[in-house]
Amino acid sequence: MGKHPVSPLAPGALPHLPPIAGVRMAAGQAGIRYENRTDLLLMLLDEGTVAAGVFTRSKAPSAPVDWCREILPKGIGRAVVVNSGNANAFTGRRGEEAVNGTVRATMAVTGCAAHEVWLASTGVIGEPLPFSKIETALPGLYGKLSPNGWDGAAQAIMTTDTFPKAATRTVKLGDEDITINGIAKGSGMIAPDMATMLGFVFTDAKIAAPLLQQMLQAATERSFNAITVDGDTSTSDTCLLFATGKKGTEIKNRSAAHALFQDALDSLMVELAQLIVKDGEGAQKLITIHVRGAETDAAARTIGLSIGNSPLVKTAIAGEDANWGRIVAAVGKAGEKANRDTLSIAIGGVVIARDGERVEGYNEAPVTAHMKTRDIVIEVDLHIGKGAATVWTCDLTHGYIDINADYRS
Amino acid sequence: MGKHPVSPLAPGALPHLPPIAGVRMAAGQAGIRYENRTDLLLMLLDEGTVAAGVFTRSKAPSAPVDWCREILPKGIGRAVVVNSGNANAFTGRRGEEAVNGTVRATMAVTGCAAHEVWLASTGVIGEPLPFSKIETALPGLYGKLSPNGWDGAAQAIMTTDTFPKAATRTVKLGDEDITINGIAKGSGMIAPDMATMLGFVFTDAKIAAPLLQQMLQAATERSFNAITVDGDTSTSDTCLLFATGKKGTEIKNRSAAHALFQDALDSLMVELAQLIVKDGEGAQKLITIHVRGAETDAAARTIGLSIGNSPLVKTAIAGEDANWGRIVAAVGKAGEKANRDTLSIAIGGVVIARDGERVEGYNEAPVTAHMKTRDIVIEVDLHIGKGAATVWTCDLTHGYIDINADYRS
Repeated sequence: MGKHPVSPLAPGALPHLPPIAGVRMAAGQAGIRYENRTDLLLMLLDEGTVAAGVFTRSKAPSAPVDWCREILPKGIGRAVVVNSGNANAFTGRRGEEAVNGTVRATMAVTGCAAHEVWLASTGVIGEPLPFSKIETALPGLYGKLSPNGWDGAAQAIMTTDTFPKAATRTVKLGDEDITINGIAKGSGMIAPDMATMLGFVFTDAKIAAPLLQQMLQAATERSFNAITVDGDTSTSDTCLLFATGKKGTEIKNRSAAHALFQDALDSLMVELAQLIVKDGEGAQKLITIHVRGAETDAAARTIGLSIGNSPLVKTAIAGEDANWGRIVAAVGKAGEKANRDTLSIAIGGVVIARDGERVEGYNEAPVTAHMKTRDIVIEVDLHIGKGAATVWTCDLTHGYIDINADYRS
Repeated sequence: MGKHPVSPLAPGALPHLPPIAGVRMAAGQAGIRYENRTDLLLMLLDEGTVAAGVFTRSKAPSAPVDWCREILPKGIGRAVVVNSGNANAFTGRRGEEAVNGTVRATMAVTGCAAHEVWLASTGVIGEPLPFSKIETALPGLYGKLSPNGWDGAAQAIMTTDTFPKAATRTVKLGDEDITINGIAKGSGMIAPDMATMLGFVFTDAKIAAPLLQQMLQAATERSFNAITVDGDTSTSDTCLLFATGKKGTEIKNRSAAHALFQDALDSLMVELAQLIVKDGEGAQKLITIHVRGAETDAAARTIGLSIGNSPLVKTAIAGEDANWGRIVAAVGKAGEKANRDTLSIAIGGVVIARDGERVEGYNEAPVTAHMKTRDIVIEVDLHIGKGAATVWTCDLTHGYIDINADYRS
């Protein structure tokens, strides 16, 4: 919470996010856990906004995740309330009370219906959420809603993040420029099944709820479900996508516009996912893992995540050691089909092993030079099929231990 | 390799292992990777010795693992050759050559058949094993075979281990005292599917091969497959069990003797497994995780390992922080049936959460005191079934990073 230095992988500046017709926001201090810290975000969406969502696969989800799952079938979004500092997870009956209280307070302030109010909470697990502080703060936020303020919104949802995360894309559909904006948080407990990450994506495009949901799920597989910091999954992971429908004609399934929009959405969500990895607790290096030649794309992703989750691979990279034997071990333990004797591995573009053994005359010098950079690229080819996937992770350093051995205290 | 301090969890001294009729051994320096270090072990078994084995489930197993799997169906053991410093894994055709060369050399020295020679190698992956050094050293070892020398044997198989690991049991069957001795190595890359651990267990009992294999598999599930250091699995994991048949009458399936022997074997292998966790790279605390009330025993073990593999749980314990929210998250991500609202969690015998929320009036003081000890006990009850399991792990500390960021260099 501000006590750790900003990640060396942080981008220079937050990009400028333009306004999106039908989206207003305000962030402020509710004092939920810490003083003098923006910890509450209210976003208001115009009538007619369509909503989609993906959530943690944890068997012990937070109360807000239960709530969002309940309202998802309606597919309507009018208000989003996000707090940081407390996850409202494993809080039993009091968790539901906090959800109901926050929804009621939002309805009172905004005039929208219960099933139009989306909630997300992030922070400590197991502590009752003091939702009266949210009730108290909401009218003030409502009074200062603005189409600008993306910076503050990205700030308000941070927990152990060392920098805010935002991205924007423009898609030209006919004569109209469609905008997509996204903000995200997350730096630890990041793994597939969404991990402690929150993502909120907004567009002025017009898209019906079933297609919007389908597009969000596809983009999530390629982005937030293809990153890992520590293999831990949270109770609170949530990614919501809202389309206000203010611009252009409706994007229909399997149209050219659908493909263009999906590409832009994928690209934006991959950027947000990479920002989370770049803020991985203690991260000093971004690691990109390309897996090819697997039985299926899903198998390739499993193998990529097995490498990306291996503490031995991640500590070797922290030590700038091209220890490719640990990559072999991680491929072997993934449980997916693999043939030791056709496996090839490259680091930094240099093939180290081919057909199951080290290449003749392997020169480690260029690989060692690559290991000293901030961007490490690992390529694995199983040579048994056509499945491919890319996964991102970061190295495992003393910083991770520092941050996590004293997070709660 | 001796450069890291001995684990604070190491037992005071190696137990005294008595001779076992039909077992002789010798350890020495072959200079496989390091100078002035015992790195080669030869064990000779009398004719009539029955063999059983369990191996890594890695899809990229080492050449010695392939070899042992090949000879396992014969169920006969006469010689065991183990080297440290080089795993002979991911070494392609040269890996097979090294296996064949070592087997031939052992046959020449001992006079036994190829399928009676068991091999294990541990150390760096991907480097060709200089097996001519083993060939050169074997005659010298053969010349000094002795029924004593368990200490040296336990030393010879170490890699990053900071202390040797051995255990012994005596089982009274009728008038006879049956002995079981075991040695093991392992301190990192330890996870179910055997991880980089080697275990060699010897008994003078008389047991037929199918029952011996069944007993080894059962004991492995409760011991080596119930521990984790870092969730990483190795290409080389091997546990072999040899019965020389020199003592007592044959132990038959489902007899009283079978039950007594299985109990002793389980207990010995749990002791060895715990020693590996106590030598977990960087370990400062032994963590015992009891899971009850799961759907099945297997589900309980999966949940226990999900907790034991969670970097967030392990760093919290390193920081002596009773962060039970991270335990909830680890239960949730295990993928096994769980009901958030019936879950209870205790640390150090103090119930912290029950029925899905923190207990009323929870007093953290005794739990905080427990967290400062070396032996941390976590109990999770899912209250949905009768499945139970116990899993052991250690905390995740700066020491782990230190050791693994520079292992190879």
